[in-house]
Amino acid sequence: MIELRNFVKNIKPYKPGKAIEDIAREQGLTGEILKLASNENPLGPPPTAVAALKKSLNKLNIYPDDNCFHLKHRLSTKYKIPINQIIIGNGSVELIELIFKAYVNPGDEVIMSEPSFIMYKIACQIFGGKMVSIPLVDFKHNIEKITQAINTKTKIIIIDNPINPTGTIITKEQFDQFIKKIPDHVILVIDEAYNEYIEDEFYPKAPNYLLKHSNLIALHTFSKIYGLAGLRIGYGFSSPDIITALMKVRLPFNVNRAGQAAASAALDDKDFVKKSIANNEEGKKFFYKELKKLGLEYVPTYGNFIMVEFSKEAMEIFNLAQKRGVILRTIYEYGLSHHLRITIGTPQQNERVIRVLKEII
Amino acid sequence: MIELRNFVKNIKPYKPGKAIEDIAREQGLTGEILKLASNENPLGPPPTAVAALKKSLNKLNIYPDDNCFHLKHRLSTKYKIPINQIIIGNGSVELIELIFKAYVNPGDEVIMSEPSFIMYKIACQIFGGKMVSIPLVDFKHNIEKITQAINTKTKIIIIDNPINPTGTIITKEQFDQFIKKIPDHVILVIDEAYNEYIEDEFYPKAPNYLLKHSNLIALHTFSKIYGLAGLRIGYGFSSPDIITALMKVRLPFNVNRAGQAAASAALDDKDFVKKSIANNEEGKKFFYKELKKLGLEYVPTYGNFIMVEFSKEAMEIFNLAQKRGVILRTIYEYGLSHHLRITIGTPQQNERVIRVLKEII
Repeated sequence: MIELRNFVKNIKPYKPGKAIEDIAREQGLTGEILKLASNENPLGPPPTAVAALKKSLNKLNIYPDDNCFHLKHRLSTKYKIPINQIIIGNGSVELIELIFKAYVNPGDEVIMSEPSFIMYKIACQIFGGKMVSIPLVDFKHNIEKITQAINTKTKIIIIDNPINPTGTIITKEQFDQFIKKIPDHVILVIDEAYNEYIEDEFYPKAPNYLLKHSNLIALHTFSKIYGLAGLRIGYGFSSPDIITALMKVRLPFNVNRAGQAAASAALDDKDFVKKSIANNEEGKKFFYKELKKLGLEYVPTYGNFIMVEFSKEAMEIFNLAQKRGVILRTIYEYGLSHHLRITIGTPQQNERVIRVLKEII
Repeated sequence: MIELRNFVKNIKPYKPGKAIEDIAREQGLTGEILKLASNENPLGPPPTAVAALKKSLNKLNIYPDDNCFHLKHRLSTKYKIPINQIIIGNGSVELIELIFKAYVNPGDEVIMSEPSFIMYKIACQIFGGKMVSIPLVDFKHNIEKITQAINTKTKIIIIDNPINPTGTIITKEQFDQFIKKIPDHVILVIDEAYNEYIEDEFYPKAPNYLLKHSNLIALHTFSKIYGLAGLRIGYGFSSPDIITALMKVRLPFNVNRAGQAAASAALDDKDFVKKSIANNEEGKKFFYKELKKLGLEYVPTYGNFIMVEFSKEAMEIFNLAQKRGVILRTIYEYGLSHHLRITIGTPQQNERVIRVLKEII
C-alpha cells in the first residue's frame, strides 16, 4: 500500500451517505418517505431559480464563468460589499477548507466549539492544525472560554452562528464584546448558514462587521433558505487580502454554471425567502407546542431545525421513526446520544413527525 | 496582513478569466463572437443530458447523493470496473488535487512533463511537493527521461495522454514498456480528458491497465466529448485502496445534483458521442489541409484542438483574431510564445477561423 500523506493517515475512512431510495429498499419501506434530516428548504427550489437555470441549459457545454462575475455582482449590490471582498465556493464547505488550505501550518492552533461541524475538524486535520475544542455551555458557544484560549499560536477561530445542531445564537451584545478581543493575527470565521431565517434584532449579522474587522470571514450559503442545496453554492465575505489568499488556493471553475445561474436568480426572489421564513416560524411554534404536550425537551431554535431530547437512546427513536417512513437525524458525531435533530418541514410534514413521535416515544 | 501557510506564499495571485460578454464590451466587438479557446464540445450539451437534468429540477433543494451512486453504477457497467474503484469529482481538476492532498508530503518528488497542465504544478506547490520537470521532445512526453528520473523519493508521476496543448500521445507500445518500470511506491496518474476522441488502436486506454497495476489512476471527464463542462463532472479509476484514500480527503457533496443527473444520461448517448467524433475528425482534416495551404506548421492532434505555429508572436495573432471576433488560446503558460491552441469547432466555425487567419498572418 502506498504511503499516505502524514496528516491524512488518521482520518477515518469515509462512510458514504445513503440515498433515500436505498434506505427504502433496505428497510422494506413502502409509502411516501419523509426525510427531515438535512435542513433543506421544504418549499423546494425557488421557481425563479429553476426558470433561470432552464435558460442556461443550452450552454452547459461551456465552462462556467471562473470568476462568478454575475453572481458576485448581485451579492455585492445586495450586501453593499465590494466584489473583491466576495468569494464563491462549491458549497460553503469548500470555503471552509480553503481557509485552512491558505492559512494553517502544522501546529497552528484552531479554536472551535465542541461539538462543532465535522468539516471544521476534518479541514483542520488535513492541514495538520492543532484543534483547541471548547465545550458548549447550555448548548451555546462558551465565548469566555474561547477568548481565554487565544494565544500567539492561534490562527483561526471558527464558529457557527446559529449553531448546528443546537440552534442557539451568540447575541449581538456578546459578539460586539467578543470581536474586540480577537487579535490581528487571528482569523475569525463566522459560519452563518441559517442567518436569513433570523429576523431577531439581537442577532449579529457578521457582514455588518467587515468594515471594522479585516480578519473576519462570514460564510453564507444557497443550500438553506434559498433552496439550492443540490447545486452547491456557498459564499464568503472578508477583507480584500483574505479573499485574494483564498482565491489563490481554490480550484479553477469550482462553481458550476447551473448553480451560478440559479443562485443569481434566487437572490432576487424576496417572495420565496419571505414564504420560507413564515413557514419556518409557523413550524417552530407548532413543534414547541406539540413537543411540550409530549413532554419532550427541546432547545428553542434560530435555525430551520430543532434539537429534541429523548429519554431513550437516539438510535432507537431514529429506527422506530424510520420504520414508519420518517427519517430524522442522529447527532452522535456531535457527542449527543439522546437527541435528534429534526428539520422543520411544511405544516403537513411537521404533523406527520409529531404523529410518529407520539407512537414511538 | 495575516501570515499565509508556508507552501501558499509563493503561489502567484489568481487572475480571473473573463466572460465572453466582458471581452466583447472591452474590445468594442460587435457581431457574433466565436470562442474556440477552451476545448469545449462545439455541438453543445447532449440533448439527452439536458432532458435528464430537466427532470431533476424540482429536487434542487435536496443535497446531491454524496456517493454519486447512480453515476458510479453507470460508469461501472460501461467500463466493467467495480464501484469501489471509481471516484467522481467537481471536474477532474478536483481529483488531481485530491491525489496530492492524500499522498504528497513536503519534499516528496512529483514527476511531470514541461510544459504541463498548470494545475499539476499548483497542486504540487500547495502540498509542498518537489516538482521534477522533464521537457517534452518534439511536443511529446519524454518517457525515457521520465523513467530515469524515478528515485526513492518519487511519489507521483502525472502525465496527460494526449497532451494538452500539443495533442500528441504516448503509444500503446511505449506505455506497455513504461508502466512496467513504475515501482510500487509510485502512483502513476494518466489524465485522459480527450480519450473518447481517439479510435486509433495504438492509443493505450489507461482503464485497461487497472487489473494489473494497483498504483495507476486514470482520470476522465464529462467536460470534453460529453459536452458538460459547465456542470463540472470528472471521474477517476484506480485500485480500491487509492480510491478509499481519495474519498477520505474529498469534501462532502462535492458533485452537484444537476451534474450527476446530466452525466448519467450523457454516458448513454452513444449517438452524441459518435457525432462528436465525426465532427472532430472532419474538422481535423479541414484544418490540416487549410493550414498547409497557409504555410502554417501544426502538430497532428489526438485531441479536439490543434496547436499551430506562427512566425509572429502569438499575442499579436491572438489580438488580431480577437478584433475580428474570434477568440483563440495563447499558451504562454506552457512556455510557447509563437503557438496558439485552436479548439476544433463545427465546419462553419472552422471556416471562419481559417478566413480570419488568412487575413492576419
